[in-house]
Amino acid sequence: MRAKLKRIIEDTDTTAGKVFNLFIQFIIILSIISFTIETLPDLSQSTLDFLYIFEVISIAIFSVEYLLRIWVADSKLKYIFSFYGLVDFFAIIPFYVRTSIDLRSIRIFRLLRLFRIFKLFRYSEAINRLQTAFKSIKEELIVFLFASIFLLYVSAVGIYYFEHDAQPEAFSSIFHSMWWAVATFTTVGYGDVYPVTLGGKIFTFIMLMIGLGIIAVPTALIASALTKDNQITIEKNEGD
Amino acid sequence: MRAKLKRIIEDTDTTAGKVFNLFIQFIIILSIISFTIETLPDLSQSTLDFLYIFEVISIAIFSVEYLLRIWVADSKLKYIFSFYGLVDFFAIIPFYVRTSIDLRSIRIFRLLRLFRIFKLFRYSEAINRLQTAFKSIKEELIVFLFASIFLLYVSAVGIYYFEHDAQPEAFSSIFHSMWWAVATFTTVGYGDVYPVTLGGKIFTFIMLMIGLGIIAVPTALIASALTKDNQITIEKNEGD
Amino acid sequence: MRAKLKRIIEDTDTTAGKVFNLFIQFIIILSIISFTIETLPDLSQSTLDFLYIFEVISIAIFSVEYLLRIWVADSKLKYIFSFYGLVDFFAIIPFYVRTSIDLRSIRIFRLLRLFRIFKLFRYSEAINRLQTAFKSIKEELIVFLFASIFLLYVSAVGIYYFEHDAQPEAFSSIFHSMWWAVATFTTVGYGDVYPVTLGGKIFTFIMLMIGLGIIAVPTALIASALTKDNQITIEKNEGD
Amino acid sequence: MRAKLKRIIEDTDTTAGKVFNLFIQFIIILSIISFTIETLPDLSQSTLDFLYIFEVISIAIFSVEYLLRIWVADSKLKYIFSFYGLVDFFAIIPFYVRTSIDLRSIRIFRLLRLFRIFKLFRYSEAINRLQTAFKSIKEELIVFLFASIFLLYVSAVGIYYFEHDAQPEAFSSIFHSMWWAVATFTTVGYGDVYPVTLGGKIFTFIMLMIGLGIIAVPTALIASALTKDNQITIEKNEGD
Repeated sequence: MRAKLKRIIEDTDTTAGKVFNLFIQFIIILSIISFTIETLPDLSQSTLDFLYIFEVISIAIFSVEYLLRIWVADSKLKYIFSFYGLVDFFAIIPFYVRTSIDLRSIRIFRLLRLFRIFKLFRYSEAINRLQTAFKSIKEELIVFLFASIFLLYVSAVGIYYFEHDAQPEAFSSIFHSMWWAVATFTTVGYGDVYPVTLGGKIFTFIMLMIGLGIIAVPTALIASALTKDNQITIEKNEGD
Repeated sequence: MRAKLKRIIEDTDTTAGKVFNLFIQFIIILSIISFTIETLPDLSQSTLDFLYIFEVISIAIFSVEYLLRIWVADSKLKYIFSFYGLVDFFAIIPFYVRTSIDLRSIRIFRLLRLFRIFKLFRYSEAINRLQTAFKSIKEELIVFLFASIFLLYVSAVGIYYFEHDAQPEAFSSIFHSMWWAVATFTTVGYGDVYPVTLGGKIFTFIMLMIGLGIIAVPTALIASALTKDNQITIEKNEGD
Repeated sequence: MRAKLKRIIEDTDTTAGKVFNLFIQFIIILSIISFTIETLPDLSQSTLDFLYIFEVISIAIFSVEYLLRIWVADSKLKYIFSFYGLVDFFAIIPFYVRTSIDLRSIRIFRLLRLFRIFKLFRYSEAINRLQTAFKSIKEELIVFLFASIFLLYVSAVGIYYFEHDAQPEAFSSIFHSMWWAVATFTTVGYGDVYPVTLGGKIFTFIMLMIGLGIIAVPTALIASALTKDNQITIEKNEGD
Repeated sequence: MRAKLKRIIEDTDTTAGKVFNLFIQFIIILSIISFTIETLPDLSQSTLDFLYIFEVISIAIFSVEYLLRIWVADSKLKYIFSFYGLVDFFAIIPFYVRTSIDLRSIRIFRLLRLFRIFKLFRYSEAINRLQTAFKSIKEELIVFLFASIFLLYVSAVGIYYFEHDAQPEAFSSIFHSMWWAVATFTTVGYGDVYPVTLGGKIFTFIMLMIGLGIIAVPTALIASALTKDNQITIEKNEGD
């Protein structure tokens, strides 16, 4: 019976395995939606009651699933301390342990359980291709990350000197200027802080010309890596 | 005579066919412009009268066209329930049926009729190339879509915890925070909601660094797919 | 002497030709800067006098240059009605003709004269490569342009229905909603108009997911075209 | 002993050299953090004292390092006037020279010293690849830069004519309009200036359609250059 259950729980190729795993995924999504609804203000008591009942049911299902996964695992310890084992554990534990600190937020770990869905739909090839591409440009991406942080810091220092006197509130320190740099170079531009002096505006212009060039690099790197990856695949196919 | 009409209506290679289809496209564009003008506030009665007269004329033309298309179709039912058949139908029906619900908005379906224009100008090859490229990266795009929604949700949850106490109005629930996440990660940044706490700002910075990386992926994917597609074409041409 | 002048004016390979053309470019840039300064409010009379004197001098130089170019041209009519011939003419004519309409803005045509600079620095190869790339994807770019305008219009219609009742001022017609659509899908997001209703926000989210995909296409197209172009060059070089 | 020290200071391959250089980098990062903290308003006297003591210690370390680097250099003058030599000098000099002008900001030059870190971690290959890619498209990037500045200027002139009468404050001259152009075409869109007239909005729309096409070019260029670069590497590997 353990072998049979093992095939249902761990093997998503069989029909029973698919049904079981899709059911668990469905409960996870429902419990995430329920978690999100809970944050709405002014919920009626009946809604809160309903959400609590659903929480108890879903925790019961997750707990049974967790125990079953331990039972069917070849190496129990290996599962418990694996990535998914820990995620499964932290998804149910806040319900049982009520400490002075509110652990309920930990339930958000259930999100990570959703990753199992990729196993189910066999998107692993697409993910593999993306992973290979990212790995091949890892060093360039790290150089780019350093360059970005360097640019953000230099921009923050620069704008601090230009704008500090004109807007002592918004640009009260380099740390405060960093927020401007983040909002500007990601091109989000909320509009809560922006330069008003002539010097600050010209500085922003020059840094943006450089910054947009840097922002263009990661897209280019990924595109190049994916193209390279594709070519090797084409050449392999031609070699067959 | 039916065969002759059929060639005019369905075959855009003949001069008569081109003239007929261009004329219909022209009326569609005029009727869309008229539909848009109607939404302007404070229109004079004479303008409204003019727009109504134009609407009657265009509906008459579209109705005649619809009946002709049914008449010349080899399989009448097949046309009626085809994509374009249904679009043609819904473009005229709101005029004839006046129910309690205002169906006039359905007229916007006329927009879909404009797609026939691509047939006319033989851009099908360019569209084919784009379609082939998109199909070859369908799986990666779905993975990317999941990753985006995941990122948006996680960001909304995070910012909710950081900003809820400081801005209970703007971040009153995770649903409300989702709006911030959408405006931020698309880099639109309207500026109606933005973090004010230090934690929220640092969280925004970290999530944006990850998020912009994810946003870079679809461009890279499409670029790679189009390059791959081109290469196969080059190699084919060289083989000839 | 005409042949000698011709070589100086039209041939940028000789030292004299380079000096002459760089001098003209320099005067053009100065006259554009002067044009820009003129728009500053509260200029002192002495500054205005200085700018006027400079304008007279630069017009004198341009007029002499124009006449010389006509004189040395093999076919005078061909030069006069060529692109650069017309640009040269419109750059000086507003000074001589004072009509009731203020023609001084036409001086901005001088900007177009700057294009001659590319001849000087031999960047024509780089420009050629870009042009070839753009030409090879002309059809796809037109399809993309149509798709963009279609998306903008549909978004404007949609947001009009969602937001018109809540914000009758900002979304008073589909034309007004178009402005929101432009600011949103280019991700500029000024923040002067944005949706406030739940429906409008969800609609914005969905349209943005589609819209950002469409915005990713032109970058991908150009990248692919440039890569393809490069490859043909590489293969040619290898064939040699 | 000089040869031994030379190997520690200049050669990052030995363990002692790695430890020495990592230590210096660590002090540089600490001194940059200290510099950033100093800009915070309302610091307590004890914090200021602590920061000053740290500043004295770090300057002492940097001074000793600078003198050592001169001592071990084969050509003393060559080091002093090399890029890193000058950077090392300007990183310590503001402490010793107190003039009427506040030179303390020069300390920000220490940031440049951080570049030595790349030597340490051997990311030079990744940087080389990026540099090769950038060099191969240098001409195209310059053309693009000219096109960008041209577009920004033309947009500023255009919006000035459309908006000057409606918003004489925000668009008081072409220079002021340039700020709008920068914020718009980088898609930052702070929302401090935006067109309000119909003409200005339509002009913005048209210029943005062109502008986004231009902004797409550098990403495409870099992607293409990186792909080309990769291909040559693949072909080389296959040739071996």
